[in-house]
Amino acid sequence: MSENISLTEAFKQTKYQTGGHGNRDIQVLKAAFENVAGDEPSDMYGNGKVIEEFQNKMADYLGKESAVFFPSGTMAQQIALRIWCDEKGIKKVAYHPLSHLEIHEEDGLKELHHIDPILLADKNRLIELEDVMGLNEDIACLLLELPQREIGGQLPDYKTLERISDYCRDKGIKLHLDGARLYEILPFYKKTAAEVCSLFDSVYVSFYKGIGGIAGAILAGEKDFTEKSKVWKRRHGGDLISLFPYIISADYYFDKRIHKMEQFYEQAKELATLYNQCSHIVTLPLEPVSNMFHVHFDISKEKLEPILVGLYQEKGIGLTGHLRETSENSCYCEVSIGDQYEKISKEELTQVFRELNEKVTSI
Amino acid sequence: MSENISLTEAFKQTKYQTGGHGNRDIQVLKAAFENVAGDEPSDMYGNGKVIEEFQNKMADYLGKESAVFFPSGTMAQQIALRIWCDEKGIKKVAYHPLSHLEIHEEDGLKELHHIDPILLADKNRLIELEDVMGLNEDIACLLLELPQREIGGQLPDYKTLERISDYCRDKGIKLHLDGARLYEILPFYKKTAAEVCSLFDSVYVSFYKGIGGIAGAILAGEKDFTEKSKVWKRRHGGDLISLFPYIISADYYFDKRIHKMEQFYEQAKELATLYNQCSHIVTLPLEPVSNMFHVHFDISKEKLEPILVGLYQEKGIGLTGHLRETSENSCYCEVSIGDQYEKISKEELTQVFRELNEKVTSI
Repeated sequence: MSENISLTEAFKQTKYQTGGHGNRDIQVLKAAFENVAGDEPSDMYGNGKVIEEFQNKMADYLGKESAVFFPSGTMAQQIALRIWCDEKGIKKVAYHPLSHLEIHEEDGLKELHHIDPILLADKNRLIELEDVMGLNEDIACLLLELPQREIGGQLPDYKTLERISDYCRDKGIKLHLDGARLYEILPFYKKTAAEVCSLFDSVYVSFYKGIGGIAGAILAGEKDFTEKSKVWKRRHGGDLISLFPYIISADYYFDKRIHKMEQFYEQAKELATLYNQCSHIVTLPLEPVSNMFHVHFDISKEKLEPILVGLYQEKGIGLTGHLRETSENSCYCEVSIGDQYEKISKEELTQVFRELNEKVTSI
Repeated sequence: MSENISLTEAFKQTKYQTGGHGNRDIQVLKAAFENVAGDEPSDMYGNGKVIEEFQNKMADYLGKESAVFFPSGTMAQQIALRIWCDEKGIKKVAYHPLSHLEIHEEDGLKELHHIDPILLADKNRLIELEDVMGLNEDIACLLLELPQREIGGQLPDYKTLERISDYCRDKGIKLHLDGARLYEILPFYKKTAAEVCSLFDSVYVSFYKGIGGIAGAILAGEKDFTEKSKVWKRRHGGDLISLFPYIISADYYFDKRIHKMEQFYEQAKELATLYNQCSHIVTLPLEPVSNMFHVHFDISKEKLEPILVGLYQEKGIGLTGHLRETSENSCYCEVSIGDQYEKISKEELTQVFRELNEKVTSI
């Protein structure tokens, strides 16, 4: 086997991968529909059994009065912030500098809704109560992302969360949860989804991260809020005649994986320990608080890539398909534990890390 | 059987229906995926074979340089108008008073893009060249819907279309095609899609009307235009991680039905003739120019409904499930010919209309 292939290619060719649920392919849809009756009717523009039942199920799970299915979180969250801004008559919100809205949405919030975000805290740390208290402008809404994905999936302790929630309620600031990975943090907090969501006025959750569905999101809150969100969903072009391909698969994988979050969390801690035993390598957070973490390498991407490619080809176990440079001499990758991890023998995994450590030590 | 059921219910219970492709149910998805290999990879945020190949296929079919798949036409068309407005620096467009953007989108164009539409022509007729020439304000873009659905699916003659196109090009007005039912009008114009589209700067087509897919749309034009549309698609929350459930079904039903448009058109004319032979009933247009038309009844909805329910129950053939009032003494319904029509015996259909005529005559 040649080592002259890219990291992505070598990763794809491994038999086992430490992260994810496996390939995102057509089978993911087929499996979800295998046992669904063909004569089950489609949803129609937000109405019908298939969408209403799932919305009710998720509202119950999240402990909210009402829930609406959206094609994407991007759409759901912009709309949530817009509703709160309209209600308050202030076109200002606050969120983390590395929020999805700030770095992955081509400024949709600004370009479509003319909402001004205030970036709270520093790029490299979580939002603290002091940051919120220190705001010297009125805002309609504060968005908290739990866990904060772009810094490895970090979480504030629960007390901090409660204090921020109390403070916002006191000041009339709406609190919105970017819960793209909400299920994944419940084992760490030892709370139910409804308990965490009770701290927030509105909540978005996703179905293709830990759940492993195809796409789609739920936005939940009080009925008055979700009714308004349906109007905005139509304005955004998200009120499709049929959303059932996403709804049925979201429901299927929710039931299949929601009880595995504790396992993913424990496995993330186990895998992080293996990384942290290597020199020049450290995970962020040091001990994961969900199924995800980042791995920081004190080695240049250029030097690390051939080491990983060699290791993948020799052992058949893939650690990551993508390294991102942080400087000339350092890089990092993201790991999210899913169904794939349990297939790997602990013994072989330990050997992979023993060898990785030897190779990076001798650089 | 009781006659005390609603028109919608009675229509649902008929064995045959004159319009549509049959039930919108889960089987529509299952059939499209039956022969697709499970290991075929998903699209990822607008990239990948499954989305790129279909976009190329549709760009070729429409005779445009490039095409982008969207979850909905609502999203695609707002974005098209926004791009043309930004390019011209004028936040003004023109379209028909019964355009989809004006009556079915909760004012998304105004609320999200702050674009002001000028309503051309009268509600009850098509836009003519004179309407465009009579504009006394600058506009960035003129949107034409072919056929004009809300007035029965009427079409301007092709010469008028060419003259409007020439005029717009001359005046620097961008011309956008709302081609939700573009395939359906090609037999009447005796033109290819590419020939019709060559008159327009940008084109939207749909996959769940005549094609009978699940949802989804294509926006096509020059590369520079479609690249911009991808940025706006992300802003709208339409750049889903996976759109393949809609793409694969759009492709499947496109291949299955694109060659049936001539048949649907001929059948629409046949069915309209049957309606027009009844007293108190007239179709709009009198002779259909696509697979669709409206049926206007000079009878109150209240009186007509029990007649239709009785007829459905007696004959097992459904004409419509929904009547819309136009006045105290008149109402109308919409008919779109699809796969269902060919299943009905001509003889039985003729009998249905003979009986309908007797009943409405004796009111």
